Amino acid sequence: MSMCNRQWILARRPGGHLVEADFHYRETPVPEPDLDSGQVLLQNLWLGFDATQREWLKDQEGYLPPVAVGEVVRASSVARVVRSRNPALPEGALVQGLFGWQDYTLARTDDPIPPSLLPPGVNPEMALAALGGTALTAYFGLVDIGGLGAGKTVVVTAAGGATGSMAVQIARLRGARVVGVAGGAEKCAWVKSLGAEDCIDYRNEDLPQRLAALCPDGIDIAFDNVGGAQLEALIGRIAPRGRVVLCGQIASYDAATPPPGPQNLMNLIYRRARIEGFLMLDFLHRTGEAFAELGPWLASGQLSWNSDVQEGFERIPQTLLRLFRGENLGKQLLRIEPAPETQA
Amino acid sequence: MSMCNRQWILARRPGGHLVEADFHYRETPVPEPDLDSGQVLLQNLWLGFDATQREWLKDQEGYLPPVAVGEVVRASSVARVVRSRNPALPEGALVQGLFGWQDYTLARTDDPIPPSLLPPGVNPEMALAALGGTALTAYFGLVDIGGLGAGKTVVVTAAGGATGSMAVQIARLRGARVVGVAGGAEKCAWVKSLGAEDCIDYRNEDLPQRLAALCPDGIDIAFDNVGGAQLEALIGRIAPRGRVVLCGQIASYDAATPPPGPQNLMNLIYRRARIEGFLMLDFLHRTGEAFAELGPWLASGQLSWNSDVQEGFERIPQTLLRLFRGENLGKQLLRIEPAPETQA
Repeated sequence: MSMCNRQWILARRPGGHLVEADFHYRETPVPEPDLDSGQVLLQNLWLGFDATQREWLKDQEGYLPPVAVGEVVRASSVARVVRSRNPALPEGALVQGLFGWQDYTLARTDDPIPPSLLPPGVNPEMALAALGGTALTAYFGLVDIGGLGAGKTVVVTAAGGATGSMAVQIARLRGARVVGVAGGAEKCAWVKSLGAEDCIDYRNEDLPQRLAALCPDGIDIAFDNVGGAQLEALIGRIAPRGRVVLCGQIASYDAATPPPGPQNLMNLIYRRARIEGFLMLDFLHRTGEAFAELGPWLASGQLSWNSDVQEGFERIPQTLLRLFRGENLGKQLLRIEPAPETQA
Repeated sequence: MSMCNRQWILARRPGGHLVEADFHYRETPVPEPDLDSGQVLLQNLWLGFDATQREWLKDQEGYLPPVAVGEVVRASSVARVVRSRNPALPEGALVQGLFGWQDYTLARTDDPIPPSLLPPGVNPEMALAALGGTALTAYFGLVDIGGLGAGKTVVVTAAGGATGSMAVQIARLRGARVVGVAGGAEKCAWVKSLGAEDCIDYRNEDLPQRLAALCPDGIDIAFDNVGGAQLEALIGRIAPRGRVVLCGQIASYDAATPPPGPQNLMNLIYRRARIEGFLMLDFLHRTGEAFAELGPWLASGQLSWNSDVQEGFERIPQTLLRLFRGENLGKQLLRIEPAPETQA
């Protein structure tokens, strides 16, 4: 165990596009757990990068409090329990949670978002990429908010992303017809390999025209992570009683001025359609339900996942920037140091 | 019966704001009904004016086909059956339907939108203002799409309008807390007289600020007929799991360029909230259900209605323009000629 706790803290409130100078590196002492009270010491091994992190850095009311300037940057991660007398979190166990951009942190089982043990046989990479918040977001967004069912026409934006690629596969495995939207030929090829009937390259194709051609009877479920012009195109092609599952607005997160809102909301009236937002956090108590369906798909290899793994603590801020440049293919991860791949 | 059928037809496809020159007056022969087949001749007595008429004049896919250039302008109205051998539509009966800007038209009971008899004791003004599409729109929008219930905080835009004033009252009579939004002190005073706790004058007050003050716990149901900046303000103040009932977009209908769409859709995610469009036409089969609740309120005087009655066939186009200038207080009507006020 190293004697110092490396941390990346928020140096200032980011203005528009994130830059590395928005973050500051520092070293602090390793915190001392109160072992008698059940508190444990965690060592971060892997970090997950999510578009929603950009939202946490804004000085605005959100679903979690904003990260304060001077505070460790909040991030999902997999950590090892390195000091514990708590039988629920034994030393050596791998746990998932929001442990942030640092080597060490303290945790308890009664934290608001407590550490959760990785299921046996699941390694950190798989956990962050295929069974983490990303998969749960895709699952509950499609199933609960979208009303996913066999035979529906589903369009997924940011389909090459971590959440989108899960959404494409879950929709297909549930018997839906899936069209993806992604940026660039490489991403589109991957989205098609996941079972999408087709994938529209929004950078090089006319999205509204291609949606009209591929979805002549309209879109039953649009799973949108992007917002802006892509959301407008989805609304323009929504089927009668269709649903837009509003998962994120990556087009807005990293912009000083958000892109214009959709001007065609009238189509929601004509189509008796709905736009609905949701947060995966509301479904945490139903994780078991999702894992019961996703687990066998994952075990049988029907559910694929892809990760873009960066290495090194010093590369953490620049790895977050990759997300907003669309450089990652699959879940963006970073390995802090070599670690046991599966739980004993 | 006059020997000629006066008509207002669509002269050209309107560009931006409607002008009188978009319409053309002509006289045609009174059509001859095929009485043996059950067809009847109707004489229009009262016309109703609705914001949705502006949408019917656009060359776009909607919930009804666009009115073609050269065609009689579609409009809701109350007519008298003046020639009939159909026992279901006897001579002298008053009927409601979409009979258009003309004196005479032919109708059958199996038309796609058939003439419906006015209930006994209901006069044309009351039918168009308080039991027509306006009331059904407010009723089913609030109850079915909004999930109206006692104790909810409901905000209604265009609350001084025909649909909005019904929505305010239905929400209040069902035990909700109601805040109206309307333009000008006179309209606001009327909205408050209908039972709204308060009414925000969007022309002279800061709408987001006032909504924050009046709805500290957020808006459970926003019934929106306006769109644009008002819709954005409603989304900005939506309560957790709140619903925006998208009824219309009057801010867009009469504009060459629609106003910007809402840029704050991210709030739908944070609030787990929903925007949903609907059409009253889908609920026509449940009219009885609405009348069972609205009828007694109307009979007991608990449900008020207000109409702005213009006179004269020649004033029909300019009466439609009143709607988009916000000049009407209550349902905009026009009486074509004196007629029996109630059905025999």
